[in-house]
Amino acid sequence: MNSQNIITIAIDCMGGDFGTSMTVPAAINFLQNSQHQNVNLLLIGQENVINESLQKFCDKNILQKFLDENLIKIIHAEQVVAMDDSPTLCIRNKKNSSMRIAINAVKDKIANACVSAGNTGALMATSHFVLKMLPNIERPAICGAIPTTVPDKCSFMLDLGANVDCNEHHLYQFAKMGTAWARAVGQIENPKVALLNIGSEEIKGNNVVKNAAKLLKDDPNFVGNIEGDAIYHGEIDVIVCDGFVGNVALKTSEGLVQTLAAALKQEYKRTLISKFGAALSLPALKRFKNRFDHRRYNGAILLGLQGISIKSHGSADVVAFEHAIEHAYIAAKNDILQKIQNLI
Amino acid sequence: MNSQNIITIAIDCMGGDFGTSMTVPAAINFLQNSQHQNVNLLLIGQENVINESLQKFCDKNILQKFLDENLIKIIHAEQVVAMDDSPTLCIRNKKNSSMRIAINAVKDKIANACVSAGNTGALMATSHFVLKMLPNIERPAICGAIPTTVPDKCSFMLDLGANVDCNEHHLYQFAKMGTAWARAVGQIENPKVALLNIGSEEIKGNNVVKNAAKLLKDDPNFVGNIEGDAIYHGEIDVIVCDGFVGNVALKTSEGLVQTLAAALKQEYKRTLISKFGAALSLPALKRFKNRFDHRRYNGAILLGLQGISIKSHGSADVVAFEHAIEHAYIAAKNDILQKIQNLI
Repeated sequence: MNSQNIITIAIDCMGGDFGTSMTVPAAINFLQNSQHQNVNLLLIGQENVINESLQKFCDKNILQKFLDENLIKIIHAEQVVAMDDSPTLCIRNKKNSSMRIAINAVKDKIANACVSAGNTGALMATSHFVLKMLPNIERPAICGAIPTTVPDKCSFMLDLGANVDCNEHHLYQFAKMGTAWARAVGQIENPKVALLNIGSEEIKGNNVVKNAAKLLKDDPNFVGNIEGDAIYHGEIDVIVCDGFVGNVALKTSEGLVQTLAAALKQEYKRTLISKFGAALSLPALKRFKNRFDHRRYNGAILLGLQGISIKSHGSADVVAFEHAIEHAYIAAKNDILQKIQNLI
Repeated sequence: MNSQNIITIAIDCMGGDFGTSMTVPAAINFLQNSQHQNVNLLLIGQENVINESLQKFCDKNILQKFLDENLIKIIHAEQVVAMDDSPTLCIRNKKNSSMRIAINAVKDKIANACVSAGNTGALMATSHFVLKMLPNIERPAICGAIPTTVPDKCSFMLDLGANVDCNEHHLYQFAKMGTAWARAVGQIENPKVALLNIGSEEIKGNNVVKNAAKLLKDDPNFVGNIEGDAIYHGEIDVIVCDGFVGNVALKTSEGLVQTLAAALKQEYKRTLISKFGAALSLPALKRFKNRFDHRRYNGAILLGLQGISIKSHGSADVVAFEHAIEHAYIAAKNDILQKIQNLI
């Protein structure tokens, strides 16, 4: 185990649509850009491929410095988890994959957290299998940050897809874990927690949500139900739902943003005046884009496990993956596991 | 019953956030703007209030012409359904409400369809209670049109909130009803039908969705699962989901659009150049806004009943409600009930 002051993050370098050409420069950028002291990275994957990417994307002197200071360490992994591998088969047959070794490093306390942009199902199943659940938590939940109308304010939402069928106890536990996460990461001492429902009144919704509301009624942070249109308003800090609903809400939002962006582009290109307007609008449009840049929110945590496992979007680029590593760092630094335990 | 060539639409004039000041001018505009022959409207509600709105919002000569030609007829209703009335109590205690009389008119074949912007729960419950289900359909579903990336192409989605708990047979029936609706209203002879899921692979999702896919596997229109990000792509014509998921997806989209619009406005106002850019961008932004103007898509149908009942958004304005009346007309004109029966 590292000294308490040093945080080690295990990175599955082979995961994601772009593999080491994305994960390796993101890791290097994280070390260069972050202001954190005492953090080091384990780069896990096929050694020759990682080395190639290090040579290609990293300044020689900087690389030497990082190696000399033990800020990066390469750990060879023979196997790679493919994006379409079955989660069950991964657990059984891919014990030497970069993903598995990264998760094992957390279990063995060689690392304080792991990050992967690989196969979501495999990452969830393997993290669950290797790390095991925290006491009194039955299911892990994917918890992500989402942008809101309020500038510089994000909300947290869980579960974003780990569980397709949940009961009221699972939602209750998600609410508690989300509260701990909002405190630790969002620095919100008293987060407002709500259940995602199809109406704000108590009588609305399915039985699971109604019963979860009853379980949560004495929770001082619980404020009741919200509808989908309130997700982005920024008034609620922790939005709780089952993984099916959360995943649909998240993906629907992603698709809608793409659709709107494409349509706006089409309309701007239609006339000369609009084109001129678009040119003058560029700074505003760029600020707007930055504000909702999903890359800033990349890196969802699998909450409820006896270890920190961070899931990056599979299509993450260098900037996005750097944010995912940052989220792993914050989770480890803030001792999120203990904070969840204190609330359950 | 009217002659087969005449379509009569019963309008609950008291429903919605703005009551007769919205429903009455919308009804008049519908008669003035639509190119349909042989359509007439029943304006149902408190007679004096409707008359006041007719005097206020309708040109005297035009009103006289409509009355002379029997294009509008006022039917007095003593009661009004409030937005927060319990659906069960409405069925029992509001038998003389404008909403109930409008639905009764459909049942009694005085009208071919009814439209209301009132209390959604009450409209669903009362429509279900009065009109009864079509044979072999177990649950009514709210089916709405949604804009897509493809210009002038909308998709249809159901259920948008009528049923919080569905089994695979319900989803199967929704798929069939959606197919009939897309054919009748969207004029798509062979609509592509998909289940909304959290992955496109067959193994993904909860048991209800997986079993629904099995029931639909021999349906020539069924193309499999889609994720939320494909809802707005325009490749799928009919998107099937349970009412909880559909309602969350729809409301989340509405909220996201508001959030993005507010943020874009903030960014445009930030500098002088941006303000100038915004001014030149106005035509493009207006075209963009029109394209996604939810008012064009107002008027969802309650599919599965032995009668046509159209639900308008409660906050609908005159333009939006006019579209809802148009949807009622199209549904009646295209004999949607028979078309559903042919498919089930």
